[in-house]
Amino acid sequence: MARHNGGVSAAANPTPAAELDPTLAALLKRDADGLVAAVIQDDDNGAVLMLGWMDDQALARTLTTGRVTFWSRSRQEYWRKGDTSGHVQYVRSVALDCDGDALLVRVEQVGAACHTGDRTCFDARPLSAVQGSAPASDEPDGPAA
Amino acid sequence: MARHNGGVSAAANPTPAAELDPTLAALLKRDADGLVAAVIQDDDNGAVLMLGWMDDQALARTLTTGRVTFWSRSRQEYWRKGDTSGHVQYVRSVALDCDGDALLVRVEQVGAACHTGDRTCFDARPLSAVQGSAPASDEPDGPAA
Repeated sequence: MARHNGGVSAAANPTPAAELDPTLAALLKRDADGLVAAVIQDDDNGAVLMLGWMDDQALARTLTTGRVTFWSRSRQEYWRKGDTSGHVQYVRSVALDCDGDALLVRVEQVGAACHTGDRTCFDARPLSAVQGSAPASDEPDGPAA
Repeated sequence: MARHNGGVSAAANPTPAAELDPTLAALLKRDADGLVAAVIQDDDNGAVLMLGWMDDQALARTLTTGRVTFWSRSRQEYWRKGDTSGHVQYVRSVALDCDGDALLVRVEQVGAACHTGDRTCFDARPLSAVQGSAPASDEPDGPAA
């Protein structure tokens, strides 16, 4: 396969600096801490695995190394997913949303995405919610076949 | 079906106040603006449709009315998805993540989720990214059958 990890040696240089394309940087709508949200989705089955945060540098590394890198808000440091846990996220695709404050990163997930050992970070806390449903007239495309 | 929209008349009261369960409120890790991220996923096909923001009140409304309500950071007001566009999001399930700063809301999406008319907010801006892939030894479960 043509896919690769950028040829970067993890042991020698776990967090190589990278530059973000200025055109892309201009599209980002960062929060007060300079971050955008990154939704991580399992490319194989569509499961939403977790949500992390990226600054320009974390995004640049994610785009250029084949490995997902976050900014850890709790530890205030870069965090290349899997470096300590082994639960690496390999990048399959990245997209920016319409208003520039969120990324969708589709990944090949090794092992569990959640630090608790759960497959996703959303497995453990389902909330009690009233369900809604569309009346027939709300569906412009009609019911699914 | 037992699903309903809480019996709330949209015309009479589009944004009814609601109270968030204090136990749940204590689990939320809000940003400097009092918000958590809400990932909206199409319950029918798994597509990640958009990312919005919720404060306690928006979450309470989402959990109790069957309709997704956000806090609009740009307009600084509550925003019940679909009230102007007709592109309503009916709640199927809601989950909180392990560290309390993100919600996963699975919905029945009426029409396009994005204000641009795209099905999702991530359709229009794919980014150029180096792909990574796991060496065989990285896969604890072995390759997919």
